[in-house]
Amino acid sequence: MSDPKPLNIGMIGYGFMGRAHTNAYCKVNHFFDLPYKPVLKAACARNEEKIKEFANNWGYESTETDWRKLLERDDIDAVDICVPNNLHHEIAIAAAEAGKWIMCEKPLAMNVAEGEEMCAAVEKAGVPNLVWYNYRRCPAVTLAKQLIDEGRLGRVFHYRSQFLQDWTISEEVPQGGAGTWRLDVEAAGSGVTGDLLAHCIDTAIWLNGPIASVTAMTETFVKERVHAETGEKTPVGIDDAAAFLARFANGSLAIFESTRYARGHKALYTLEVNGEKASLSWDLHDLHRLQYFDHGDDSVVRGWRNIHVSDGDQPYMGNWWVPGLQIGYEHSFVHTVADFLTHVGTDSPAGPTFQDALETQKVCDAILASAKSGSWSNI
Amino acid sequence: MSDPKPLNIGMIGYGFMGRAHTNAYCKVNHFFDLPYKPVLKAACARNEEKIKEFANNWGYESTETDWRKLLERDDIDAVDICVPNNLHHEIAIAAAEAGKWIMCEKPLAMNVAEGEEMCAAVEKAGVPNLVWYNYRRCPAVTLAKQLIDEGRLGRVFHYRSQFLQDWTISEEVPQGGAGTWRLDVEAAGSGVTGDLLAHCIDTAIWLNGPIASVTAMTETFVKERVHAETGEKTPVGIDDAAAFLARFANGSLAIFESTRYARGHKALYTLEVNGEKASLSWDLHDLHRLQYFDHGDDSVVRGWRNIHVSDGDQPYMGNWWVPGLQIGYEHSFVHTVADFLTHVGTDSPAGPTFQDALETQKVCDAILASAKSGSWSNI
Amino acid sequence: MSDPKPLNIGMIGYGFMGRAHTNAYCKVNHFFDLPYKPVLKAACARNEEKIKEFANNWGYESTETDWRKLLERDDIDAVDICVPNNLHHEIAIAAAEAGKWIMCEKPLAMNVAEGEEMCAAVEKAGVPNLVWYNYRRCPAVTLAKQLIDEGRLGRVFHYRSQFLQDWTISEEVPQGGAGTWRLDVEAAGSGVTGDLLAHCIDTAIWLNGPIASVTAMTETFVKERVHAETGEKTPVGIDDAAAFLARFANGSLAIFESTRYARGHKALYTLEVNGEKASLSWDLHDLHRLQYFDHGDDSVVRGWRNIHVSDGDQPYMGNWWVPGLQIGYEHSFVHTVADFLTHVGTDSPAGPTFQDALETQKVCDAILASAKSGSWSNI
Amino acid sequence: MSDPKPLNIGMIGYGFMGRAHTNAYCKVNHFFDLPYKPVLKAACARNEEKIKEFANNWGYESTETDWRKLLERDDIDAVDICVPNNLHHEIAIAAAEAGKWIMCEKPLAMNVAEGEEMCAAVEKAGVPNLVWYNYRRCPAVTLAKQLIDEGRLGRVFHYRSQFLQDWTISEEVPQGGAGTWRLDVEAAGSGVTGDLLAHCIDTAIWLNGPIASVTAMTETFVKERVHAETGEKTPVGIDDAAAFLARFANGSLAIFESTRYARGHKALYTLEVNGEKASLSWDLHDLHRLQYFDHGDDSVVRGWRNIHVSDGDQPYMGNWWVPGLQIGYEHSFVHTVADFLTHVGTDSPAGPTFQDALETQKVCDAILASAKSGSWSNI
Repeated sequence: MSDPKPLNIGMIGYGFMGRAHTNAYCKVNHFFDLPYKPVLKAACARNEEKIKEFANNWGYESTETDWRKLLERDDIDAVDICVPNNLHHEIAIAAAEAGKWIMCEKPLAMNVAEGEEMCAAVEKAGVPNLVWYNYRRCPAVTLAKQLIDEGRLGRVFHYRSQFLQDWTISEEVPQGGAGTWRLDVEAAGSGVTGDLLAHCIDTAIWLNGPIASVTAMTETFVKERVHAETGEKTPVGIDDAAAFLARFANGSLAIFESTRYARGHKALYTLEVNGEKASLSWDLHDLHRLQYFDHGDDSVVRGWRNIHVSDGDQPYMGNWWVPGLQIGYEHSFVHTVADFLTHVGTDSPAGPTFQDALETQKVCDAILASAKSGSWSNI
Repeated sequence: MSDPKPLNIGMIGYGFMGRAHTNAYCKVNHFFDLPYKPVLKAACARNEEKIKEFANNWGYESTETDWRKLLERDDIDAVDICVPNNLHHEIAIAAAEAGKWIMCEKPLAMNVAEGEEMCAAVEKAGVPNLVWYNYRRCPAVTLAKQLIDEGRLGRVFHYRSQFLQDWTISEEVPQGGAGTWRLDVEAAGSGVTGDLLAHCIDTAIWLNGPIASVTAMTETFVKERVHAETGEKTPVGIDDAAAFLARFANGSLAIFESTRYARGHKALYTLEVNGEKASLSWDLHDLHRLQYFDHGDDSVVRGWRNIHVSDGDQPYMGNWWVPGLQIGYEHSFVHTVADFLTHVGTDSPAGPTFQDALETQKVCDAILASAKSGSWSNI
Repeated sequence: MSDPKPLNIGMIGYGFMGRAHTNAYCKVNHFFDLPYKPVLKAACARNEEKIKEFANNWGYESTETDWRKLLERDDIDAVDICVPNNLHHEIAIAAAEAGKWIMCEKPLAMNVAEGEEMCAAVEKAGVPNLVWYNYRRCPAVTLAKQLIDEGRLGRVFHYRSQFLQDWTISEEVPQGGAGTWRLDVEAAGSGVTGDLLAHCIDTAIWLNGPIASVTAMTETFVKERVHAETGEKTPVGIDDAAAFLARFANGSLAIFESTRYARGHKALYTLEVNGEKASLSWDLHDLHRLQYFDHGDDSVVRGWRNIHVSDGDQPYMGNWWVPGLQIGYEHSFVHTVADFLTHVGTDSPAGPTFQDALETQKVCDAILASAKSGSWSNI
Repeated sequence: MSDPKPLNIGMIGYGFMGRAHTNAYCKVNHFFDLPYKPVLKAACARNEEKIKEFANNWGYESTETDWRKLLERDDIDAVDICVPNNLHHEIAIAAAEAGKWIMCEKPLAMNVAEGEEMCAAVEKAGVPNLVWYNYRRCPAVTLAKQLIDEGRLGRVFHYRSQFLQDWTISEEVPQGGAGTWRLDVEAAGSGVTGDLLAHCIDTAIWLNGPIASVTAMTETFVKERVHAETGEKTPVGIDDAAAFLARFANGSLAIFESTRYARGHKALYTLEVNGEKASLSWDLHDLHRLQYFDHGDDSVVRGWRNIHVSDGDQPYMGNWWVPGLQIGYEHSFVHTVADFLTHVGTDSPAGPTFQDALETQKVCDAILASAKSGSWSNI
């Protein structure tokens, strides 16, 4: 393949996701043949000291403290939005108007209304766009998609998914601020619904098609927390836990659950699909494995197959090491970049696009509405 | 201990549960010191040939073909009701009136109205009574109860439970008849709700207290099946799958699900409880194990403990073999008999009593009502 | 099937194995159609009080305190030898001479010389004989045998097996006496070699054919223990741990290990076989499961199958409950009796016979010899 | 921390290990604060086209086709030897004489004699040196080391370790050449002993101290293979499988096994240590988990703890993502570089040094000698 074309990245934010995405930009061309090669052109954040430290550590060529300045720069091709949810809308629309490619951290927006405006903006501008629902590209999850698309499961009866954490059980955890803005409803929009269930929903729609209706419940176990910015105890506005029943358009039933109060689970994202002919399940704590049950197997030796997804003929794995050697969490971001750059400008861009992410946003809004009303919400 | 007093059993039914209970009566005194010793006095069923074969195989001393005759016999102390759900009500009330002890297969009744009359009857007659929710007495589940009662979990945030099977996926499975009456709404009252979710609910209430409210969905995937007795295809009236969200009285949230369309799962009854200080989980496919996470463990070596429940200081296990050697499904019935006979006639009879089982029935009725109404039902 | 013929059992011993075998005699005809039905005719032990208590609990019709008296009784058809290893030889030979069927606890004898005399005795007398290597008849192990015999594994390259316990780590555990005669070399002959490795070897030969040669090491970690009978500290003569390398006659390589000093393992008997086309593994702590890897599976979904051995088409399981419901340790003894009684008097009696067990004894002797000499021993 | 000092790397080789090490050089400073920063100065191999492609992909500034030229360059501070085993000796000694730091791929040498000369050379030159036994630095393995050093296991009774693969079962796999030089005894020196057992031994000595004596067996299952360079079928000189019993200096017993004929296992490196107070086990197929059993736990809730090693207080993990998110195989190399650069020039350099690797080489040679002699070899 000819040498890849440079793609100048402007990173907005420097937190956990800023690091994860930047690491992906650094690694992706070492392992994948691509038409583009990300260049770490500029990093941007309001805190000048922090952003300079971040840029120095990762090798960004320059820094900005105002994202509007970043958008004005001609040497920036693409912006990566890694800031709290309440800023996605404004930045993304401005970036679209500036003609930049946009890779936006999930969830897309604070709500469907914002999301629709963002979709309209990227469509009008005709700019490539992506939302970082990275778990689609854990090889075991991608393999699940492949098996379903091949028809190996047959008619699907059941889908179930959880995202369980335990890091906010202590009442001492504050809301707001650098590491805890996800507990502040002003910055996050919602709690586990937008943060965790959104992942479950994105994968579910990708694997099993549209969700038709939901009924939900939410709970806030700790009612007040100190706000990191004011130092004062204020009511907690987010959902600490959320669960919902769903019906998919294809007739299958589903249960979904997410919480930050499941003692013993750090980041246990699980999914399972039961079909007429086969079933599969996966979880993030052993992300390199897929469990697969094929009813077509000879009955005396039928059992769940524990598949170590590390062979060269399994998704993405031919680009890494040798069979038996596992990859980890960070690689899902590398694959996201690889697929995005491979398909950009074609008729079938790598998802999830803004439009795809809007579908997830609609389900999130329906969950929150149902939890209030106590009745089913149609999507 | 002095020799146990004989307790003459009259068994009504000879199916799967008839075998499981009879096996328990045969074994229990070999392994437990008890005040009573079950004697296989009579077995009863309409089909004379079948019941004689059953009685001969297991050593029942006599047979009857009419349960009313059985109840008239003075040499019967206790009756065991192992017939389809639609017969529980009539037989149990008659047995109570005849002054017999009653061990009734689960679920208690077709609905709450029946259950209330049955409770009134045993209360009026003052006869010992029990419903065979056997899973409470898998040693790992009993250990879970013990850990919760000791306060090891602290405040409970989440409860989740499933009962997943896959034996009715084929449209060729008939409804009605000997092995498939559970698919016939006339005989069973409901589908997975009364058959499987009832187990989940009984254990849940036992471990985590009363359920306050539920919202549910049910589905019948195969709409028509041949009826085994008529040979004609008739509409299926049961729920093939059911799921519900719940709030417990103690403020914890729960999700429950049951189906006979989960390819790859034969009898996967699971439960998990997440508390502030610890969590635990269990499943029937490895019933001799309990998973336990203690947040109080030293942080670098904190992890889910995979407890092989086979030590002499764990519930019931001192009565069996030696550490490391597992027991199985049938032993849950032996423990049920052992506990029933140990506590009968005391102020704290071994549950679940008819009254306990009525609480489960109330939740089952609420599930079916909510699935119809689309809104929450209070218990 | 016509009613089974009574088979009068004379049980010698009342310990752990006495209970396990008696339980099997009680249950077997309830679950299997057999030509014979064991009758608990007499139980025998030197301690009159203990044996009367045992007989009363299990329903033995009579007791004896001298095994010679038992052998003289015409109403005893078969004797079950459940006493320490050093008594097997004398009792078995006398029983053979008395024309009794013999079911002898494992290992067969103290050494090969004794074993050869025992084999000669039963052959001369022409009496049915069996040694209780029960693990062959855990359904998952029997299924393993079936898969190997069907040729599913192809050429075998590797066999490995362990039996790990941890109950003698404390120096306070005595040697000799009722529960601890297995630590007394006078009663047991050897330590883990005869007690635990013997199980591994019996199964290995059954599954993979004769063992050709071994090289071994043994160790006694606690050099002195109080003797339960004398109350005095005396040297420990048994092997606390033993491991050996082996070559099978079929060219495969093997490693075997056993110990009572493996902290965390109560009774972890494991085995694994690696063949050209497939592999399988099993362990006693989850005895109802077989792990199976079939290289013929489509490569992207190839993985170890976790087989829950509880279906009606898997060995023995059609006689028990329904799919998904597991059986336990005790059932391996029930199956042993069932197979013994099914095949007794035919040309292919159910093994392991005395002759089969002698082959295992030869390997045990070779292990102990090699551990002393430091060189390979041929079998 | 002040900016790290550049460390100019000269990489010799471009294969699997060349990629793995280079990836580590690229990533390490993004995640660890270090006194040095590797600079990809030159890559070297005989095949000019291949090495230019490799250098271009990874960003090496220049290439060489003769390693002697590389050693002559003043702008090279350190060389990384990633070539077949038969070249380690000559290159390492020349590199030492040229005053370069040396990071050498494992095993150290073809045999002890070569290894001793290499140790002498680096000692004489006083150059920092390292051998890439990377598995020490999987966080779970490093945690195991920490737990043992803290005395949590107490006296160790047993060690066991395996490295099982299945990639050479087919007779069609050639020997010699780029991907298969490990099957050619001329290039590799031995088969699984130097390639796989060497890993097991390095970790074992690190965790449990010196090995005192061994008895071994080896086997070559496929006797002839086509040589990739000549196209002719020639005898296979390597060991396809090897197993040995060992006694450690601390009195513990061990079994080790390695093979490339274990169907179903791609790279299953396992280890387990049983101590008086606690036990631990680990395997490479789930490298982010450590199994830990603490006998000090309250007996009713005692069980193997399944530790997901992803918390900030566990080794290395504070430098990566957040709890619950796993890292993979490649990170063991990043940690190796990080530790090497942190400790270089201090009194306690990060191991394994050449001298440490020589101890492993001595055990490898003893294994091969014992397999020939059939008797025990002392180390």
